[in-house]
Amino acid sequence: MLEFREFHKKGSGLFLRLKGVLYSGRSRYQTIEVLDTEDFGRLLALDGLVMTTEADEFYYHEMLVHPGAVLAPRLERVLIIGGGDGGTLREVARYPEPQHLVMVELDEAVVQAARRYLPTLASAFDDPRLDLQFLDGARFLETTRESFDLVLVDSPDPIGPAEVLFSEGFYARVREHLTETGILVAQTESPVYHRDLIENTARRLKALFATVLFYTAPVPTYPSGFWSFALATNLPREALRVRRPAPEGLRWFHTGMVPALFEAVPAFMKP
Amino acid sequence: MLEFREFHKKGSGLFLRLKGVLYSGRSRYQTIEVLDTEDFGRLLALDGLVMTTEADEFYYHEMLVHPGAVLAPRLERVLIIGGGDGGTLREVARYPEPQHLVMVELDEAVVQAARRYLPTLASAFDDPRLDLQFLDGARFLETTRESFDLVLVDSPDPIGPAEVLFSEGFYARVREHLTETGILVAQTESPVYHRDLIENTARRLKALFATVLFYTAPVPTYPSGFWSFALATNLPREALRVRRPAPEGLRWFHTGMVPALFEAVPAFMKP
Repeated sequence: MLEFREFHKKGSGLFLRLKGVLYSGRSRYQTIEVLDTEDFGRLLALDGLVMTTEADEFYYHEMLVHPGAVLAPRLERVLIIGGGDGGTLREVARYPEPQHLVMVELDEAVVQAARRYLPTLASAFDDPRLDLQFLDGARFLETTRESFDLVLVDSPDPIGPAEVLFSEGFYARVREHLTETGILVAQTESPVYHRDLIENTARRLKALFATVLFYTAPVPTYPSGFWSFALATNLPREALRVRRPAPEGLRWFHTGMVPALFEAVPAFMKP
Repeated sequence: MLEFREFHKKGSGLFLRLKGVLYSGRSRYQTIEVLDTEDFGRLLALDGLVMTTEADEFYYHEMLVHPGAVLAPRLERVLIIGGGDGGTLREVARYPEPQHLVMVELDEAVVQAARRYLPTLASAFDDPRLDLQFLDGARFLETTRESFDLVLVDSPDPIGPAEVLFSEGFYARVREHLTETGILVAQTESPVYHRDLIENTARRLKALFATVLFYTAPVPTYPSGFWSFALATNLPREALRVRRPAPEGLRWFHTGMVPALFEAVPAFMKP
């Protein structure tokens, strides 16, 4: 019986029995595996860590995208940093408003694997509004002159190449490329296991933005099963109100969760 | 290397490396084990399933007790059904108001194991306000003539002896033993893995109570890492407001989470 294991702490974690291995390779940046699990459909692992599974990806992708998307006063220009599996793009593409949708992913091989093995995630890569670039997200922000109404940072864990995506310098670059009413949303790891990272991120964002909010969602195959997101903007908090309904057919998020999401968090997530 | 595994679905779950086994026995009702884990301190398992660990029990016990406790207009008489490890009792005992605190636990052997091996959970068993009875919770409600301001149902999973604690008949009995402003709070399993149970519980409670609310919390060692609770009362929703602050020194809950907690849930948890 094949089994995938991910250690979430020194001596504990998740096990998943496998039906088989669909793909295993190494790109310039990382090992990429697509595994067929018994319980969660297909699983994408980068360097041995679960990035997403077919069965539970909707929690993460809906919650990364829709709170910011329903609150953003304008939604014409959207930037996704990371997100190579396509799930974040798929959720953004559900809205009619975006005219220009830029996705900057470091590793082209992840997108290729997703297109081939994860069609339910990769369903929006042919959207005509998409401008897909294979480039480091921080580097992209240094060179582009565009500004965005919504920037979504869909990064892996802050180790290795993605570490820069959690730095104050990176968030400052994002701010420079937000429109006046622009909103940044970034995944910020587990409130259970990575409280330090959330507190550090809160400090960095507070130094840069007028309004910084955190919120949470379940993601059963991520460490602790519970995840967090930061939303930052130069709008005052009072200006954040629902501007459009979320699309039909979502499985976890609904518009009525906003703004309660930002209040239903522990004290260390209210900077 | 000793390892504890709990299957949460057919082919997946949690593994925890162990430093050793502190206790293993069988009561009249179930097997009881206390294991020393590498990452979560001591773990109490009943019939092979994680009931609580020293490291993450605060999420569950704070969130079972404090939302109802801060909202209850009166808090003089409190009933705990189940909760043999003592964690729920410990959280209730932090409040000065309760004068009579009844705890009805089926299995005396669980309390004995907790008192011996889990002192940080079992710290309130000597509270002079406590009336501890070893009895089936449903049976207790059939015979007692007392009414309570807050009833907390801290049950194991709805299989075997605890199944009755999720039935409409049981909830109807609880209602009969609530004071006019009384509040019931019950754990209702994982919103990720046990959505049916939540929907069934919502239906049962709606048939009995004027106001039914659900809320969630992380519990990393429980299936999916994400848990739910139901709060039901015959008070109208508008009458539910914070009546007293939560005690100092909590690690997850704070009073500011109420009432956002009840709004920050998916549509199926808003009956």
